[in-house]
Formats: sequence, structure tokens, C-alpha cells
Amino acid sequence: MIKVLGLDADDTLWQNEEYFRAAQIAFQEILSPFCTADDLHDALTATEIRNIPKYGYGIRGFTLSTIETALQISQCTINPKDIEKILSIGREMLDHPVELLPGVAESLPKLAIKYRIVLVTKGDLLHQQQKIDRSGLASFFDETHIVSEKDVETYKAIFGARITETVMVGNSLKSDIQPALQAGAAAVHIPARYEWDLERAKVDFDNSNAVQAKAFADLVEVLPKIR
Amino acid sequence: MIKVLGLDADDTLWQNEEYFRAAQIAFQEILSPFCTADDLHDALTATEIRNIPKYGYGIRGFTLSTIETALQISQCTINPKDIEKILSIGREMLDHPVELLPGVAESLPKLAIKYRIVLVTKGDLLHQQQKIDRSGLASFFDETHIVSEKDVETYKAIFGARITETVMVGNSLKSDIQPALQAGAAAVHIPARYEWDLERAKVDFDNSNAVQAKAFADLVEVLPKIR
Repeated sequence: MIKVLGLDADDTLWQNEEYFRAAQIAFQEILSPFCTADDLHDALTATEIRNIPKYGYGIRGFTLSTIETALQISQCTINPKDIEKILSIGREMLDHPVELLPGVAESLPKLAIKYRIVLVTKGDLLHQQQKIDRSGLASFFDETHIVSEKDVETYKAIFGARITETVMVGNSLKSDIQPALQAGAAAVHIPARYEWDLERAKVDFDNSNAVQAKAFADLVEVLPKIR
Repeated sequence: MIKVLGLDADDTLWQNEEYFRAAQIAFQEILSPFCTADDLHDALTATEIRNIPKYGYGIRGFTLSTIETALQISQCTINPKDIEKILSIGREMLDHPVELLPGVAESLPKLAIKYRIVLVTKGDLLHQQQKIDRSGLASFFDETHIVSEKDVETYKAIFGARITETVMVGNSLKSDIQPALQAGAAAVHIPARYEWDLERAKVDFDNSNAVQAKAFADLVEVLPKIR
């Protein structure tokens, strides 16, 4: 019997990856004299993977990795004005209003009546708090956990003995579904429009306590059928 | 009767501001063709104050603000190789080993027998967690709170009804002492070797429940005399 509903935030409740894609298109424009869009994407992804153990997730680390990649790709021949542009893109991302995904505003109040709602989100502490405030959804969250990594230990620590009556819902197979299943929870995967390279993973939906849903609004129907 | 000991981390348990000072000296060296050390310090402080509502505290925001200041001061004529140097200084700061302040390793185990130890630190989530892990002190903390700002509401939320039996210890008048007093706790100020411009505040030690101590080791003597 599911009593606890764990919810991812970025790209599950509100847009996120879309802003990173838009920033990367602007970045490709800036670096177009030096390399192709594909090569730039690969170089940025490699820089991000290298830096995540130091920078963690979020826009500040992304901005720093973007500047590092720009210097590397241009062999330090980039115009410093373009570094200023990258800083400005990063600051604009931090200021972006929160855009809820379709069905969230309507469905979350219904779900909050039936389940204990536990938000589990990773990234920059301050920016995640600001997004929760701006979302207008804070009153529906019984608990809010902002973490630096979403792994098996994270879910065990957050849900403890409640894990067997918990379902974790999110768009990331690597951060929301796989570790929640391993910790003993059920899981609902709602694929997002865009998937970040670093969030890919394989989940066997046929032989695990995980299902897929097309949209957040479907949870009202899907959740009562779990377990 | 004091039962709960709230502890700041950076510059109370371990070195922190010293690394920022060393980074700023390296930064002044890089920017010396463009301005004096004093002008650079003022410009960087102004950039940090402007960015803290977006970036919050910590080394990643400091690195971004440093790059922004370098571009501004040099009017974008800085050599991109120097931006690479600044990025590298920031990454080295994140990798720095944790150096405990004198007396902490000896006194904390004694204090942990008598008081409930509650760590309250602000800054980057991931880096603060890494510093706690590297410090070797984690087993002495009954609770760990990493927050984005240390204000009256933060202390009320953390200590709740326990606030009247809590003493908060830290080096920052603005973040550790003033808001903890306003929330209803007692406070012990241990001045650090270096004080960051943004952590200055005035506290009336004669007419408040706050005292000053010279070193962490003095807490064993000072705390039983409070209230």
C-alpha cells in the first residue's frame, strides 16, 4: 500500500533541461568560429563529467564548465567579451521564472490529499530553494530534501522504514528510478522532453517495481494500481 | 541550562577565509597591470554583494564573481589564459584539505559528551558535505544543517523549542551571533584570524546573552558559565 509519494522537481514538476539546451545553443553560436556544434557538445559534456565531483550539479557549475570548455576549444584565443556573454547567460538561467509542466498544478493538490508528498531534488541549495518558492507549490510538500547526489543511500536516508510504502516519481532513470528501486521503493518514470546525457541509465520495467507514465496528470490513475 | 551546542564550521572548526585571502592575492597578481590591490578588492566585494542573491555563498560563486570582476576591471582586455588561471585557482580551493583550527580536535570530543552538537553551516551543499567528511569530525555531530543563509528564521527552524537551551558558537557576528541571539539562543563569539567584509555586524556584548572567547579550546571552561 503506497502512502508516500517521492517527487523529483526539475523536469518532473517544472521545466529545467530546456533552459540548459537554450544556453548550449547560444554557446554554440559563440564558439562557432572554433568548432562544430557536435564537437562542442562532446567537449562540454566531458568537462562537466570531469568537474561534477568538485562542482556538483546546477547552473553555477555549468557556467564554470562552459567557460572552461570555451577556453579549451578556442585554445585561449576567444574574445574576453564572449566570456562575459557566457557569464550573462548563466545569470539569466538563475533568474528564469519557474514554468510548471502540464497537469502539475491540477494534479498535485489531488495527490497531496491521498499521499505524503516528499520532494527530493538535487543541485544548488539556494537555487533549488528559490525555485520551490517561485513554483507556488511549496504548501503541497510535506517534506523537502535538497541533496547533492541521488543514489541508493540518499533514498534510504530520506525514506528509512517507509521505503516499502513509497513510490518515487521522476524523469531521470539514473537519479530517480534506478536508485529508488534499489533502495526498495516502487517507481514511476515520466520521460521528459529532453534528457541530459549524464542522466541516462537502463531500467528493466518488465522485471521491476517500476512503471512508465506519459504525463504527470496520469499519476492520479497510475498510483492506485501500484503494489 | 545549556544542553544544545550549535557550531559554525568555516573559520570556527576549520580554516576557510585564509584560502579566500590567498586566492585574492593570486588574483591581484593577475590583475596588477590594470589596477591597485585595494581597487580590485573593492570591485570584487561589490561584485560579490551584487551576485550573492543569485549565486549564494561558496567557492563556485566566488570564482564566477572573480571572473566577472577581471573582465570588468580589464575592460575585457585580459588575456584569456588569465581566466584559465582563475578557474584553476577556484578548483584548487575546492580540493584543499580541511585544516582544523587549534584545539578543535582535542575539545570537541569533550564537548560532545556533555552537549548535543548541532552543526550549522552555509555555502555550497556538496563542498560543505565534502569538508565535513574530510574533517574527521562527522561522528561528533548529532545533527548537520547545511543552509543557504543564516538568519533568525534559520535558527528558529533548526532549534525550535530547544532555542532557550541552545548556545551558538561561531566566528561571524553577522551570521552566527546576531541572528542566534535574536532567535533566543545564547552565543559565544570566537573571532577568526581573518574576517570577510560581508560578515561584519555590531553586537552589544554588555547587554546581550553573548560572550567572547579567544579560542575553541576555551569553550570547555566558558560554556558551563552561560545562563
